[in-house]
Amino acid sequence: MTKPNEHIMAWLRDAHAAEEQAVTMLSNMARRIEHYPDLKARIEQHVRETEQQSAKLDKRLRELGSSPSAVKEAGGKLLGLGQALSGVFTGDEVVKGVLASYAFEHMEIASYRILIAAAKQAGDTETQRICEDILHEEMAMAKWLEDHIETITGQFLARAGTEGVTAKH
Amino acid sequence: MTKPNEHIMAWLRDAHAAEEQAVTMLSNMARRIEHYPDLKARIEQHVRETEQQSAKLDKRLRELGSSPSAVKEAGGKLLGLGQALSGVFTGDEVVKGVLASYAFEHMEIASYRILIAAAKQAGDTETQRICEDILHEEMAMAKWLEDHIETITGQFLARAGTEGVTAKH
Repeated sequence: MTKPNEHIMAWLRDAHAAEEQAVTMLSNMARRIEHYPDLKARIEQHVRETEQQSAKLDKRLRELGSSPSAVKEAGGKLLGLGQALSGVFTGDEVVKGVLASYAFEHMEIASYRILIAAAKQAGDTETQRICEDILHEEMAMAKWLEDHIETITGQFLARAGTEGVTAKH
Repeated sequence: MTKPNEHIMAWLRDAHAAEEQAVTMLSNMARRIEHYPDLKARIEQHVRETEQQSAKLDKRLRELGSSPSAVKEAGGKLLGLGQALSGVFTGDEVVKGVLASYAFEHMEIASYRILIAAAKQAGDTETQRICEDILHEEMAMAKWLEDHIETITGQFLARAGTEGVTAKH
């Protein structure tokens, strides 16, 4: 038998590890982008949001009595996912980066929906509030990617079809 | 310089590889689920849809002149992603399986949005039509998961908190 609070702690640690990983991946992606300024700017904005999300989760974990070392050890399985997504990020096409970020955002969206449901059930209103705030930022980022995926694909194909122009980043 | 059609072929091969992988992952997930019958039934339905999606993509690739061997060799980077998601799928909680399938569905949704944009630009109406059909099925599956994630989390926590009851699958 396990209590909801134990799962909330474990899932918060996973979410924190995923946000830490997102900072690294998204920073690397933004740094490589040269010819897609709108995408670069939106990712840079989301890196700053993600840093704050990570800090909020870290603070909440400490308030709930989790140690920093426990935070560092968390997220093994999800880290594998993040590493695989990094492989896609470092692929040779900006569109694959968009695809990977879109998938990663939805992994995070699912994480926060799970955490919000669990926090509601456990009456942990503070965790619920934090996760709802973060969820809105993740959904906004996912929507931006969805709204721009057609344009970015079009720009990529146009650049790739033009002599003397690079398309990949 | 590369033509849109070359990218469409490569992206179709990636999408086909992802669907093949989805069949394996989702079948394994459905087989393990014991205590969440609605989830099990919806995943089983999606396995059948995914098998048909894979067949449609295979057929279209052959029409466009791609060889079966090229199909088999495709999707290296995305396969890494699928393998990592499998790691999450085989995790110890049904909620992690829902999280991983939700992320995987959105990887596929992004793939088809990219393919639809490219097919439109290239005037390949048949590829566009096939990808639009598949996109609707992926979006329906993603919406089902989103609509049920709170209930499944609640059921999981209730089972986990009850003596003599298993919660994981």
